Amino acid sequence: VAENETKSLSLGEIAQFAGALVKGDPEIRVVGVAPIETAGPDQLSFFTDARYRPLLEKCTAAALIVPPSFTDLEFPLLVCDRPYLAAVRVAKLFFESAAPSAGIDPAAHIEPGAEIGAHAWVGPLAHIGSGSRIGEGTCVHGTAYIGRNVSVGENCTVYPGAVILDGSRIGRRVIVHSGAVIGADGFGYVQDEAGRHEKIPQIGIVEIEDDVEIGANATIDRATFGRTLIRRGAKIDNLVMIAHNVEIGEDCIMAAQAGISGSSRLGSHVSLGGQVGIAGHLEIGDRVRLGAKSGVHASIRSDQDMAGIPAVPQGEWVKSYANIRRLSRMREELRQLKDRVQKIEEALNEP
Amino acid sequence: VAENETKSLSLGEIAQFAGALVKGDPEIRVVGVAPIETAGPDQLSFFTDARYRPLLEKCTAAALIVPPSFTDLEFPLLVCDRPYLAAVRVAKLFFESAAPSAGIDPAAHIEPGAEIGAHAWVGPLAHIGSGSRIGEGTCVHGTAYIGRNVSVGENCTVYPGAVILDGSRIGRRVIVHSGAVIGADGFGYVQDEAGRHEKIPQIGIVEIEDDVEIGANATIDRATFGRTLIRRGAKIDNLVMIAHNVEIGEDCIMAAQAGISGSSRLGSHVSLGGQVGIAGHLEIGDRVRLGAKSGVHASIRSDQDMAGIPAVPQGEWVKSYANIRRLSRMREELRQLKDRVQKIEEALNEP
Amino acid sequence: VAENETKSLSLGEIAQFAGALVKGDPEIRVVGVAPIETAGPDQLSFFTDARYRPLLEKCTAAALIVPPSFTDLEFPLLVCDRPYLAAVRVAKLFFESAAPSAGIDPAAHIEPGAEIGAHAWVGPLAHIGSGSRIGEGTCVHGTAYIGRNVSVGENCTVYPGAVILDGSRIGRRVIVHSGAVIGADGFGYVQDEAGRHEKIPQIGIVEIEDDVEIGANATIDRATFGRTLIRRGAKIDNLVMIAHNVEIGEDCIMAAQAGISGSSRLGSHVSLGGQVGIAGHLEIGDRVRLGAKSGVHASIRSDQDMAGIPAVPQGEWVKSYANIRRLSRMREELRQLKDRVQKIEEALNEP
Repeated sequence: VAENETKSLSLGEIAQFAGALVKGDPEIRVVGVAPIETAGPDQLSFFTDARYRPLLEKCTAAALIVPPSFTDLEFPLLVCDRPYLAAVRVAKLFFESAAPSAGIDPAAHIEPGAEIGAHAWVGPLAHIGSGSRIGEGTCVHGTAYIGRNVSVGENCTVYPGAVILDGSRIGRRVIVHSGAVIGADGFGYVQDEAGRHEKIPQIGIVEIEDDVEIGANATIDRATFGRTLIRRGAKIDNLVMIAHNVEIGEDCIMAAQAGISGSSRLGSHVSLGGQVGIAGHLEIGDRVRLGAKSGVHASIRSDQDMAGIPAVPQGEWVKSYANIRRLSRMREELRQLKDRVQKIEEALNEP
Repeated sequence: VAENETKSLSLGEIAQFAGALVKGDPEIRVVGVAPIETAGPDQLSFFTDARYRPLLEKCTAAALIVPPSFTDLEFPLLVCDRPYLAAVRVAKLFFESAAPSAGIDPAAHIEPGAEIGAHAWVGPLAHIGSGSRIGEGTCVHGTAYIGRNVSVGENCTVYPGAVILDGSRIGRRVIVHSGAVIGADGFGYVQDEAGRHEKIPQIGIVEIEDDVEIGANATIDRATFGRTLIRRGAKIDNLVMIAHNVEIGEDCIMAAQAGISGSSRLGSHVSLGGQVGIAGHLEIGDRVRLGAKSGVHASIRSDQDMAGIPAVPQGEWVKSYANIRRLSRMREELRQLKDRVQKIEEALNEP
Repeated sequence: VAENETKSLSLGEIAQFAGALVKGDPEIRVVGVAPIETAGPDQLSFFTDARYRPLLEKCTAAALIVPPSFTDLEFPLLVCDRPYLAAVRVAKLFFESAAPSAGIDPAAHIEPGAEIGAHAWVGPLAHIGSGSRIGEGTCVHGTAYIGRNVSVGENCTVYPGAVILDGSRIGRRVIVHSGAVIGADGFGYVQDEAGRHEKIPQIGIVEIEDDVEIGANATIDRATFGRTLIRRGAKIDNLVMIAHNVEIGEDCIMAAQAGISGSSRLGSHVSLGGQVGIAGHLEIGDRVRLGAKSGVHASIRSDQDMAGIPAVPQGEWVKSYANIRRLSRMREELRQLKDRVQKIEEALNEP
């Protein structure tokens, strides 16, 4: 994961790629991107916030990507409207060239009947089950496990120790981080006559669309019947739990350790803070945002910001906590008022 | 995990297995079970709730399992008292026939001195340590790791990437899902003279009784001394944490991301919602039910329903939250009352 | 993880090692340490709390480690100031002798260009990437994965199924438990012009200093730029999430399922209860203690004990909850007071 140090690009080339204007010598060459605090004289950096101007005094970067409001800076500049987004894209340019070469490592274990696409890579001690197809350019790292009848699309990355179980369908450009488990049984039981939990067989699958990222040690369970579905562009952080038959909408973003119970459905662009919990069989509308640690026990309409356990609109949550903090004073006021009423009553009762 | 499509059963055979009565042609054959929305003309389905009657109009299932109250339906029927439980058991009938064949994959790694029972399966890149015994009919999938001196009983399933560490004892028909870690060190330290944390060696074991299921990426730590114990029939969901020396009673059910701290003991049939936390050294009685996200700081007697942080009886929790939501109104009432008392005082003080 | 039963030590030898005085026969030999309830006649035990005196009647231990206040007990004794700490250290003495022998298992997969130190052990189906160095005496267990250009110091233990990704730097005597993932990508995106999440490349590393312990299935993400840093002596329990660019101070202790969001910094000796969550870009001072399940949304000065969501000083949290529980009574008092004021008003308005 080191930058490819032999690759260098000129400011002119980068400007063309990023749709930026060069202010300074377009022939200056850089070998990577770094923040202003650490960028060396052969690296590009970015500057977007006037508060950090003092950091520029010691900055040794070769050049800066800046918005039009900072064209006065005494550095070679690349000027564009969204400098941080441009910096990210330029960083990727250096970074992506470090991909492993294609092929199947001799220590990989490929079952007969598995198909590995062109330019794909399967690392040592990785396993691909029979009936599975690995797309072109996809990288299955060492010790990853792909079960049977799994399809993994093009240009995916499956990191070491990730497990994708039988029948899962993975789209294109999906990233599955180490230790993530896709397609374990959903958690479903029915009580038998004696009150014991009898397992409901989980015979559905997991389907993951294009451009999804699944964090390390996250778990996405297979459906009881049918499918658990993660739609295009959803980003799921480490240690998140997605239960059976859940549907996650396009471009949802779920921070670490959040959990969604069975059969709940999230709309698109939903944003979950860390450690959020959502009960089962709920509908969460588009663009709902849930503060960290909230607990959701009822469906939520679109475009709501919610927080708390149970989750309530963000404003109501803030007010409730302010009220709770005032409770001691309120009790004191109530006590004083009782005294005053007591005195009035005594005064009125005097002969 | 596809159903075995070559296996088909007649309604007559299924009725005999499930203790149901056939209404219609007992020679009709089906190849699997699915919900009414998706069941095809060669599949059995089930119907238990009058609210979903409209779904039957488009239902193409070959037959339905129903309770005695729905014998009017115009489908071939299997009538029995607990139709959903019957459907689950019939689904298993089709599902279980798809088990992998027995044997030891040539790419499995078995240390000398390990014993693999008859009809057991050890998959590619799986590891079995010396002194361990794998029971008859047990399936250790590829890339699973079984340490030394582990005993795994009959007819268990250990999924890819699961880790069962040295000395663990696993009963019969236990399911350990991918990424679960059984027998890692408990989290125990003692501060030394300089205030640094010195590790307490964790030399106990984990013991898991029959019919337990352990979810993906769950962790069950070994005891400091003695054993961490999961009793018969307990069901543990993904990403659950069970600390050292904990005891989980029979038929407990623990939803995802719950955590139990060291040395706490749960009675039988305890039910934990998602993300529940229980502090250490507590006793939780039989049939206690804890709402999702509750935090338990004190022992709980049997047969309590609790919720909240800290957990209180469910009814009290509901009332507290209702009271909190009324606080703004209560403050306003208090303010108005102060005004009224003020006016009374002024009136009384007038000459 | 069984004690090495061939190793025995005399009370005299143990006394010398632990700085204790022998009361009784210094030639008595023991083969291990166990609690008073389970210690056999060839084991040492420890006794530190007068409440448990009744347990001694049935205790069959060969000898007891005790503080100076218990020299009256009718057992062979080892007397010292910190008996539990001494017991732990003596237990280690028996325990550590059971380490696996050094070498590289023939079924390990070592890439060309990896360096394995003297007396190190690499287990079957473990992987060591090119450019990585494994220190002297370090034990990489079977199925563990070490990426490229990783350095692991001396006398570390990496358990089965642990994953340490490219470029990570691990100090000495570090323990990484099964399923832990070190160096997965941080969770960072920038929205593109269409509102989709574009991945920010994560090109930093993880650095872990000496004497750190990382729990099973914990995740420590690599930095966006720079490093995620775990300082000397920090102890991290199972299923903990440490996000990109976080810094954890020396001797911090973090219970299971806690999570720290990106770029937050913890001072030294910070203590986190289970399931604690800390938002991003915060500063947590030295010796801060956070109760289980707290949620931290703002920086905290040193030496504070905090609890709640959002976290407040422990005393304030206790008072808030007491106040909430009094709310029903307070409502009733307010109602009664209104009645009294009403009556006063009526009395005053009477002609």
